[in-house]
Amino acid sequence: MAAYSRDQAAWAPAGRPVALVKPEDAEQVRAVVAVCAEHRVPLVTRGAGTGLSGGANAVDGCVLLALDGMDRVLEIDADEQLAVVQPGVVNDHLRAAVAEHGLWYPPDPASSPWSTIGGNVATNAGGVCCVKYGVTRDYVLGLRVVTASGDLVTLGRRTRKGVAGYDLTGLFVGSEGTLGVITEITVRLLPLPAKPPQTVVGAYDSLVAAGRGVAAAAASGITPAALELVDRYCLRAVDDWKNMGLTDLGDVLLLGRIDTGDEREAEALQDCFDRAGATWSTRSTDPEEAEALFSARRLAYPALERLGPVLTEDVCVPRGLVPEMLGRIEAHAKAHDVHIANIAHAGDGNLHPLIIVQAGDDEARARAQQAFEAILDDAVALGGTVTGEHGVGLLKKRGMRAELGDDVIALNRAIKSALDPHGILNPGKVI
Amino acid sequence: MAAYSRDQAAWAPAGRPVALVKPEDAEQVRAVVAVCAEHRVPLVTRGAGTGLSGGANAVDGCVLLALDGMDRVLEIDADEQLAVVQPGVVNDHLRAAVAEHGLWYPPDPASSPWSTIGGNVATNAGGVCCVKYGVTRDYVLGLRVVTASGDLVTLGRRTRKGVAGYDLTGLFVGSEGTLGVITEITVRLLPLPAKPPQTVVGAYDSLVAAGRGVAAAAASGITPAALELVDRYCLRAVDDWKNMGLTDLGDVLLLGRIDTGDEREAEALQDCFDRAGATWSTRSTDPEEAEALFSARRLAYPALERLGPVLTEDVCVPRGLVPEMLGRIEAHAKAHDVHIANIAHAGDGNLHPLIIVQAGDDEARARAQQAFEAILDDAVALGGTVTGEHGVGLLKKRGMRAELGDDVIALNRAIKSALDPHGILNPGKVI
Repeated sequence: MAAYSRDQAAWAPAGRPVALVKPEDAEQVRAVVAVCAEHRVPLVTRGAGTGLSGGANAVDGCVLLALDGMDRVLEIDADEQLAVVQPGVVNDHLRAAVAEHGLWYPPDPASSPWSTIGGNVATNAGGVCCVKYGVTRDYVLGLRVVTASGDLVTLGRRTRKGVAGYDLTGLFVGSEGTLGVITEITVRLLPLPAKPPQTVVGAYDSLVAAGRGVAAAAASGITPAALELVDRYCLRAVDDWKNMGLTDLGDVLLLGRIDTGDEREAEALQDCFDRAGATWSTRSTDPEEAEALFSARRLAYPALERLGPVLTEDVCVPRGLVPEMLGRIEAHAKAHDVHIANIAHAGDGNLHPLIIVQAGDDEARARAQQAFEAILDDAVALGGTVTGEHGVGLLKKRGMRAELGDDVIALNRAIKSALDPHGILNPGKVI
Repeated sequence: MAAYSRDQAAWAPAGRPVALVKPEDAEQVRAVVAVCAEHRVPLVTRGAGTGLSGGANAVDGCVLLALDGMDRVLEIDADEQLAVVQPGVVNDHLRAAVAEHGLWYPPDPASSPWSTIGGNVATNAGGVCCVKYGVTRDYVLGLRVVTASGDLVTLGRRTRKGVAGYDLTGLFVGSEGTLGVITEITVRLLPLPAKPPQTVVGAYDSLVAAGRGVAAAAASGITPAALELVDRYCLRAVDDWKNMGLTDLGDVLLLGRIDTGDEREAEALQDCFDRAGATWSTRSTDPEEAEALFSARRLAYPALERLGPVLTEDVCVPRGLVPEMLGRIEAHAKAHDVHIANIAHAGDGNLHPLIIVQAGDDEARARAQQAFEAILDDAVALGGTVTGEHGVGLLKKRGMRAELGDDVIALNRAIKSALDPHGILNPGKVI
């Protein structure tokens, strides 16, 4: 039960559950929720537990509802370009299954080899390709949900459009298990991209300079299919682990991807990188080279976790303010005397400063916590958000209040009370 | 005041308002809502009144809040690809304003020369390009809203991503004025399409055959930027009005648009049309020819309105079932002895059967009403929805109940009660 009591947010507290239930179907989920509703027992639902905000952490006295065993792809309809899945289906498994039909499920969080579609929906997960293709909510057509009163209801649709009633499907996406338990998901699919992607790389000698490359790309009107940033801390951590020779490429890398097959767009993106002061740049259509570079991006987080507990930020700012925000993050690292590594879905303005301290150093931990909150406040001050894609969970509750204000928090509470009047669903999370 | 008391849904009842208010800014809106809240006076908000479901019709004793005068584009940020507008900005005006910056606001309802962004947001309006580019909700980043208690709140964000709190922005989109009054809208923009579009036309000798062309295109995996259907009634009505010679082209036309610049895609779409039994087909890159054909689509509705009161359907079915649904629509026309013309965003499965009766023929009117409800039930039976893009308003309330079921209606009511406890906002609409 302990293994199911927390997600990957090493810094978030977790309570002690009283029971772990692993249902096999929606009817079993319904029965569990009904019992919890009757006895006013808190219920915490989870998938693979790869979350980074503590949203799936146990609360004292709760029932843990682990949906990782409900992992069947129920239907793939190639003509309608949709799939119906249980919540425990792993993201990469869904991609592989639909690829056999020439189809593509775009949302690709870095956790895609492990995280589940149910968890992705609960957090409205983003990923690398969102800069062009949008986030999880953009691909969810319909849901089956067990409500707080223990009713199994069907929301949304299988059609491309539909406006009958309020958008409850969209409301449940990103609600982090606080409004209901998702037992089935209908997702929209796209055709598999036909053109071989081109990779464009720019190296910079500072974070802020790389941020200028991002702002230049945004202002150019080019729409890359990925625009990622990886800094020297991350490159070094990956090299120390996998010996890939990444640190030789530069201090900070921008990794762009163009998937239109249009060579001129790749050229234009490289030109943006160069004009913003890249110390070096290149572009390539070699899939192995591209895979190596993007795997460096994916490996950055686990590589850093090897060095100590990671406190993960997830701020998102207007794209033109990426250099300003990166500068402020560097200043906070210095002011609070902590190491901050940076990976970013830079093309969205979605930055992941990763604050790293030595395990057991309580003073450093307190300084890291201060830096964390200061970065959240800066993101809000720049017109951004405290969480671009990871969710509020436990770690961003104060930041969210600062961002939304009391009036909007009150509206959120009104929705929560309307759909979960006894507050049994994932209590203490989000709001 | 009478002119502001109804939208374009000729068949929907309208009540008698007690006052018409035309506010100039959000503060005036706030003041009006506060007074209505204090005195429990119903408030009906409207834009241009181009709606087709009666959603903006007055109810007895209401205050009409007309936002068409709040028509300023407040900001266009080309680097962040967003615009901030007041709700009364006309759709085509926004498009023209952002085009000067090389940007594009995709949602394009047929009413775009008249309808307002506020109304588009309130109904989650669709349009021609949605088959590839999505609907209004996909472009709304943030809103300012006056709540039922008279508070002016800011929802959503200006950043590309953000998951702080529930998706209240998405919830307000499509809520048809029943949850709050929208006073400002931040929309996401795309770069203006660079490639000259190719138009692909297929002519068919029956509705069902044209439906097969739609299903074939869906199954092919091609993503056209438009795939419209116009039948013989509409072509004749446009010809009678504008003398465009459309009826010479065929009985039923499919109009496709490919905007990727890829000649092979246009060829493949034409091939789908041919294999499905087109009596004639062509493709062209001539912009004037394309404009003439698509204007026939746009003119169909006003052309038919010249013939008598039009009862407008808006069903949406899975794309592969378009031929089946078109066959059923023809059967209902015959069984109920009414004329039904068809235009459709066929590529989405979104069909607009238009039921036409002679003004003053009460018996025909009753038969039309029966055909209308029978078509709604068939759409639901085929796994579709009673409204793809027009909204529920007054005309689709029974159909929506049939589609959603009591359990989901109860969830909709819970949301409504949470956000508008005294039921002053557009009462009697939607739920």
